[in-house]
Amino acid sequence: MKTIEWKKNCVVLIDQTLLPHRTKKVVCKSVEDVARAIEQMKIRGAPALAVAGGMGLALAAVRSKARSRSELLRVLKTAARRLERTRPTAVNLFVGIRRVLKAAQRCETVREMREAAIEEAIRIAEEDIAINRKIGEHGAKVIPRGATVLTHCNAGALATAGYGTALGVIRAAHEKGKNIRVIATETRPLLQGARLTAWELKREGIPVRVIVDSAVGFMMAQKEIDVVVVGADRIARNGDTVNKIGTYNIAVLAHRHRVPFYVAAPLSTVDFSISSGTRIPIEFRDSQEIERIGGTRVLPRGVDAINPAFDVTPAELIMGIITERGVVKPSQLKKLKSQAPNL
Amino acid sequence: MKTIEWKKNCVVLIDQTLLPHRTKKVVCKSVEDVARAIEQMKIRGAPALAVAGGMGLALAAVRSKARSRSELLRVLKTAARRLERTRPTAVNLFVGIRRVLKAAQRCETVREMREAAIEEAIRIAEEDIAINRKIGEHGAKVIPRGATVLTHCNAGALATAGYGTALGVIRAAHEKGKNIRVIATETRPLLQGARLTAWELKREGIPVRVIVDSAVGFMMAQKEIDVVVVGADRIARNGDTVNKIGTYNIAVLAHRHRVPFYVAAPLSTVDFSISSGTRIPIEFRDSQEIERIGGTRVLPRGVDAINPAFDVTPAELIMGIITERGVVKPSQLKKLKSQAPNL
Repeated sequence: MKTIEWKKNCVVLIDQTLLPHRTKKVVCKSVEDVARAIEQMKIRGAPALAVAGGMGLALAAVRSKARSRSELLRVLKTAARRLERTRPTAVNLFVGIRRVLKAAQRCETVREMREAAIEEAIRIAEEDIAINRKIGEHGAKVIPRGATVLTHCNAGALATAGYGTALGVIRAAHEKGKNIRVIATETRPLLQGARLTAWELKREGIPVRVIVDSAVGFMMAQKEIDVVVVGADRIARNGDTVNKIGTYNIAVLAHRHRVPFYVAAPLSTVDFSISSGTRIPIEFRDSQEIERIGGTRVLPRGVDAINPAFDVTPAELIMGIITERGVVKPSQLKKLKSQAPNL
Repeated sequence: MKTIEWKKNCVVLIDQTLLPHRTKKVVCKSVEDVARAIEQMKIRGAPALAVAGGMGLALAAVRSKARSRSELLRVLKTAARRLERTRPTAVNLFVGIRRVLKAAQRCETVREMREAAIEEAIRIAEEDIAINRKIGEHGAKVIPRGATVLTHCNAGALATAGYGTALGVIRAAHEKGKNIRVIATETRPLLQGARLTAWELKREGIPVRVIVDSAVGFMMAQKEIDVVVVGADRIARNGDTVNKIGTYNIAVLAHRHRVPFYVAAPLSTVDFSISSGTRIPIEFRDSQEIERIGGTRVLPRGVDAINPAFDVTPAELIMGIITERGVVKPSQLKKLKSQAPNL
């Protein structure tokens, strides 16, 4: 089962809002379908958004009735803007869109442009899986034998084209027989930890238990956590990392308890144009995500919620960033710039 | 509307699991009814549990058909053990039970014992409200004008006989026209912040918004929080404070961001027999509280949750403890021992 795939000129993805209870596929036939799936978080996770953005644009190319190169380019640029408006924080979305746009721009004919767009979008997905396996390989080295690993949100197969970043590291450590256990934070408000991470790990036979987000400090004080590995939605060139809301809390607690805190992400997540984390735009999502649980309003009428989707973890709290090129200190990230995807 | 009251030889309490949508009263006719209401958290909050414990024991006295002093004492001791088994962490429960038991023990006849038990239980409730008002008065002084106050869980009228401890401080600051605003953490798993604190403050006209527990770090990094006030379930004599799970996370984050962190609690919450927080028993509650949301299972089958109900905030992270005798540094707490309720 693939998180997202290109099939018969459609984009087919698992509706992650229904997991773990229903495994329903959504067939997107237009760029608007893909944009809405992203907005509604039917698909989410930085690397998966690169694929969704790329495939969304390829879909625009395929569906367009444009007859000239310039006409199709206009269509693609409009589609790119629509896709870029879906979510502001994860940089991978923009990278995926730009890659497919550039692939089309390099072609002469409308037919070539369509083919190149599809090929590039599929290539993004294939490369992502290969990159995640390399991240896993490098990352497994920093996971001690018998460790209990804490992870937040879902940086797994579902957040990528497959295998996962933080969960790729956990998968690789498990595959190497390191006898690890996982504590997954439930990750309010949308419960990606409880619903997605627990589901992925259970399927792999990796022991996993769930805690509420606010129990991290208690678990660390009890010495129940040996290492933390999380994903990333965007990393500034100084190593500051934007990831799911609550990541920063965990990093601060890990620092206090001297628990090593790692970020696992492809180099495409590093935004070398941004100097520090405070400059990365943070998405605020609808208050409804917090106000209602399972369709029932939990907040009293007239009270609303503030719902930042991400926070910034400063580089000083990060022991290492696990990339496809190895594990580096945040301060060493810039040395990998030449090896990052060139856009 | 009272959180809990003695009425026609019954204990009447608001079922807090149904708030804010239904305001349903539960009539407890036996000590077993009260014990179950406590276990199911229909009533919760350390000071409210003192009242519930005391009234539960008074109920045992009233309902018993015992004809001799010694027979009734046996009944009361059995009832006390039942009530004490409900929840292990909040010390106030034990204080309330012991106060009523002692009041009965001081009497000669069965009739006097029953009357004394009822009187003492009602006195606990009345004293609690008076104490909370004093806590509010002292605490309001540490709340800056125009401040945004963060609070966790519910340490309000619903957690006490009335007025509240942490929310007593907030109420008093509001009554003094300090023009404050409140950020309430939703407080997973049972959402006391979203359901109860937001409801209480909305009714009072105090501006309140809700965040997920994991957004505290982000809000502090954005300088959106000026001061933190929380309640307590038990305080060791060195000032270490046990309170709702997640309190410790907030204290660590407040320390990093130099946001003053206060605990508001009556002196009856201080357990002078316990030297430090790590010796206070922490209740683990049913995994179901996390596994299911609104009746629907969110965790995949075969995965369970770890559900500690409380954590320990070390004294070093606490700027002051707001008691009915004034605001003291945790290290100065022992000086108040002689003024604490003598049991």
